Amino acid sequence: MSPPALHPANLNPNKGKDEPFILPPGVTSAQFSRFLKRCREICGVENVKVVEAEEQLVDGSYYEPNKTHDMHHIVDRNYFVCSATISPRAVPEVQDMMRLCNEFEVPVWPVSIGRNTGYGGAAPRVPGSIVLELGKHMNRVLEVNAEDAYALVEPGVTFFALHEYLEKNNLKDRVWMDVPDLGGGSVLGNTIERGVGYTPYGDHWMMHCGMEVVLPTGELIRTGMGAMPNSRDDVTGIRPDEQTPNRAWQLFNYGFGPYNDGIFSQSSLGIVVKMGIWLMPNPGGYQAYMITIPTDKDLKSAVDIIRPLRTQMVLQNVPTLRSILMDAAVSNPRSHFLKEDRPFTDAELDQICKDLDLGRWNFYGALYGPEPVRDVLWSTIKQAFSVIPGAKFYFPEDRKEPFSVLKTRSLTLQGIPTFDELRWVDWLPNGSHLFFSPIAKVSGDDAMLQYSVTLKRCLEAGVDFIGDFVIGMREMHHIVCITFDKKNEESKRRAHWLIETLIKDCAEYGWGEYRTHLAVMDQVALTYDFNDNAQMKLNEQIKNALDPKGILAPGKNGVWPKNYSKEEWRIPKSVTLDKPQQTLSRKGSGWRTPEKL
Amino acid sequence: MSPPALHPANLNPNKGKDEPFILPPGVTSAQFSRFLKRCREICGVENVKVVEAEEQLVDGSYYEPNKTHDMHHIVDRNYFVCSATISPRAVPEVQDMMRLCNEFEVPVWPVSIGRNTGYGGAAPRVPGSIVLELGKHMNRVLEVNAEDAYALVEPGVTFFALHEYLEKNNLKDRVWMDVPDLGGGSVLGNTIERGVGYTPYGDHWMMHCGMEVVLPTGELIRTGMGAMPNSRDDVTGIRPDEQTPNRAWQLFNYGFGPYNDGIFSQSSLGIVVKMGIWLMPNPGGYQAYMITIPTDKDLKSAVDIIRPLRTQMVLQNVPTLRSILMDAAVSNPRSHFLKEDRPFTDAELDQICKDLDLGRWNFYGALYGPEPVRDVLWSTIKQAFSVIPGAKFYFPEDRKEPFSVLKTRSLTLQGIPTFDELRWVDWLPNGSHLFFSPIAKVSGDDAMLQYSVTLKRCLEAGVDFIGDFVIGMREMHHIVCITFDKKNEESKRRAHWLIETLIKDCAEYGWGEYRTHLAVMDQVALTYDFNDNAQMKLNEQIKNALDPKGILAPGKNGVWPKNYSKEEWRIPKSVTLDKPQQTLSRKGSGWRTPEKL
Repeated sequence: MSPPALHPANLNPNKGKDEPFILPPGVTSAQFSRFLKRCREICGVENVKVVEAEEQLVDGSYYEPNKTHDMHHIVDRNYFVCSATISPRAVPEVQDMMRLCNEFEVPVWPVSIGRNTGYGGAAPRVPGSIVLELGKHMNRVLEVNAEDAYALVEPGVTFFALHEYLEKNNLKDRVWMDVPDLGGGSVLGNTIERGVGYTPYGDHWMMHCGMEVVLPTGELIRTGMGAMPNSRDDVTGIRPDEQTPNRAWQLFNYGFGPYNDGIFSQSSLGIVVKMGIWLMPNPGGYQAYMITIPTDKDLKSAVDIIRPLRTQMVLQNVPTLRSILMDAAVSNPRSHFLKEDRPFTDAELDQICKDLDLGRWNFYGALYGPEPVRDVLWSTIKQAFSVIPGAKFYFPEDRKEPFSVLKTRSLTLQGIPTFDELRWVDWLPNGSHLFFSPIAKVSGDDAMLQYSVTLKRCLEAGVDFIGDFVIGMREMHHIVCITFDKKNEESKRRAHWLIETLIKDCAEYGWGEYRTHLAVMDQVALTYDFNDNAQMKLNEQIKNALDPKGILAPGKNGVWPKNYSKEEWRIPKSVTLDKPQQTLSRKGSGWRTPEKL
Repeated sequence: MSPPALHPANLNPNKGKDEPFILPPGVTSAQFSRFLKRCREICGVENVKVVEAEEQLVDGSYYEPNKTHDMHHIVDRNYFVCSATISPRAVPEVQDMMRLCNEFEVPVWPVSIGRNTGYGGAAPRVPGSIVLELGKHMNRVLEVNAEDAYALVEPGVTFFALHEYLEKNNLKDRVWMDVPDLGGGSVLGNTIERGVGYTPYGDHWMMHCGMEVVLPTGELIRTGMGAMPNSRDDVTGIRPDEQTPNRAWQLFNYGFGPYNDGIFSQSSLGIVVKMGIWLMPNPGGYQAYMITIPTDKDLKSAVDIIRPLRTQMVLQNVPTLRSILMDAAVSNPRSHFLKEDRPFTDAELDQICKDLDLGRWNFYGALYGPEPVRDVLWSTIKQAFSVIPGAKFYFPEDRKEPFSVLKTRSLTLQGIPTFDELRWVDWLPNGSHLFFSPIAKVSGDDAMLQYSVTLKRCLEAGVDFIGDFVIGMREMHHIVCITFDKKNEESKRRAHWLIETLIKDCAEYGWGEYRTHLAVMDQVALTYDFNDNAQMKLNEQIKNALDPKGILAPGKNGVWPKNYSKEEWRIPKSVTLDKPQQTLSRKGSGWRTPEKL
């Protein structure tokens, strides 16, 4: 199999009239036609939608994303495109679809909701794959157990939907959920992609418990205690039917023998169709806060203050340290602050800080527990941060403005979903974005160096630095938000160059990405190259064993089945940057350069 | 390949003079001789020890266990026996050994320290396997990073050794470790078997971070961020050599792509040769406590009180609720309390409680943090438990006796290893033990029912009920300690019957074991039988892909490679119980029966 060019080489000459404009690799128009017939038999006519023409590739919005391609297309819009979207109505249909795809050797790209925003959305890695849209029909909250503090969800349950469920059933007093920046994504999908939120339960993967998975061959497994099917009813002594799940499925992760859950995260080894997620018992009190850090250089002190507080759980949740432009972008588009197409000067950034009454870096956290506990924690935190000259401390009620990031974060940090963070995507016209998200030790030196390295490249690419540090237990996810104008080819080219260059630069320092966009999955995978890519060889061995025909999400996270040549399918190196927007000769202009940090 | 009978069918007629008395299945005496020669070339002559004769099967003690077989042999002592113990000196020797074992098709059973006590010790599942004793030479604490609160250890680092390292380097003020009941085991070995301890870091598997693993073929991988090898030095910009580990290896578990660590736990897919483990920052204050529960029936209330306190983290650590005989057994052997070979009566148990000033159940926990925080937590805990009539509250200093379980637990709960819990193993003469450890929801009903079901079978088998409930985040491990006299065939037979029967009974209620002894691994694996054992089929597929010759730990946790017939290798059902020691007709004698609970 050879890859389509950026404009797919395997365009279907018969496109239209129920024929896709792009076919799965190696599949003929006639074969695909027979395949579609069978899909309709399995999932119902109304649940099979063929992408007949380029014109169907309408981006939509975050609220209503198209499931055919990446809304934030960083390469040609027509590249990461599916041949059809198919929406199974229940688990047996997912199983049947997997058997069918094996029969026809059609690659499948499963999505829950398709809002994997900044990482490729609903788009498949291999053009012409079918998108299996799990969340459309399989969207039930199967259980919320407030006593044991967990939920069991299907792929289509969004953070908003789970929140609504808790509200409707008056469960919010008992259990809180965790939510990432945006509430529209799938709880299950976000978790298996190892996304994070910001409450004490922010490490979603750590907080998942028990999964039901359709394997590439269509086989169905339950992991952990779910593999022990039945519970005899305590009182009646009656064995319930085969489908009754084990009562400890959402209570204990590991079960017996090899603990397999991890191989189904960021992976192409199975389709997760049910997942347990732990909820946080209502902590009995809550207070969000913000600490503003006035200067860029005090990023170092701030991070060094954060580390011991976090490991000691004085900082109970996953807090964030956000650069000024991230908060500015939530308030207004770029044009509000600067009309010209050039980087902000230091003076301009300081002016924005002054106007918004924020620091160059702003720290968002929350206190959980009864008041006496919160008081002890808050006084410790205040004392620690007070060594930073000019640091200021705010509770949401201290802020006068009608809208503030602190007010939004105050919701997020108690697990109430919002859409507010969407606003920074519109920093540029036709606003689109990519995330660059390397992992580092929680240290001031690492933060400064990472900031400096990324800022330098942002300036070269003419992209504003918008980033934050998300503090996990012992590491930080540095999330660099690369914004671009998707209708401007030069803007896309620069964004693509930027992420490729950052991956390369950061790998030199040992900073690896925790997750990435389709277009650079191969590149990131190659940076994890200990012992001649031994880990990738392991991944491939398992892939080939479980998915011998290589039909499930080929290429996902750089793992290619044996029937694909990964060299051929690699996305071509985007570009070299012809004209860096910032060069050393322009230092005098007041542009910030890393050397000044 | 067919299994040896309980007395191995493949006894080596040439045994002695450097020939093992039992050979690996399918390997001739001549082949094994050539194999040994190569082993000596790889690991050094002094590191290859052949088990030439039955007489070498000396059990030893916990302090100095023999690595040739199971010290607590529940089946024939000569059954779970190795042909030779081989002690590699470094990782490349482990890799070479795996390549050699593939060449000769000799099964390998890796152990760290070999103290997997109650679950099979150092013994291999397949008689005649070689035991690869990793911990003998590979026993360095490679790093303790107090700033980021982790350690990187080799297989031979025991909890005692790590404790000593922290003491010697004056690190105890900064970081605490977690320790299981006994301190002599391997930190790495315990963690990959998913053992637990009792501090807030008691879930060892959850707290591990980053591994180096030799795959069955001899390939070496590092997981998580370890797969990204180099960190450019921040200051010099120099790339260190290939072996320099990534600085985030012990900080962030998941890395990029499928998260593989879990498949190396309780598994036969790789040999873990290095592992990171998170340490707990010194919490700034500590107080152990005990709460005595006077009656058996209040086990129910106690567990229902515990559940919400634990999920809310008012109970910060992994606490335990111990039956009276467990604490009694730590103080004295059975004969001290009862001369006759019959179960204790209720009155006798109450008398023991009175003598030892304990309850029928005793709850051990600890408070962590500065005094004001501990005070808030303690008053909440006291208030909650005060609804139990007669419940009493103790700090260690409240106890007058020179030795008490509370004083031992006070060490354990701050991560200081002891050997004190060894004492209960000597409950019977020639004291040996097995653990039966099902998982259940943290609920009073489950606890009572599980107690009742297990007690009933204990009485039938004539085994005293010695057990405790270990409370995880949302589940409890019920650890039933089955003690037996290993020199008494009838005692062994009864213990074996008991564990088999308990596995069967508990599976009916949906309670599955988290870990088990070699002799019943197949039986437990079969209870996890959702969808016609779909999980086991998955495990086997991965096993066969990564270990095509089936040489690494065949049969571990019930996973058999394709070159073994699992039916043939199953341990024969031990026995039926000819004469239950307790029958309904004897109810009147005062023996406790489940119906009375």
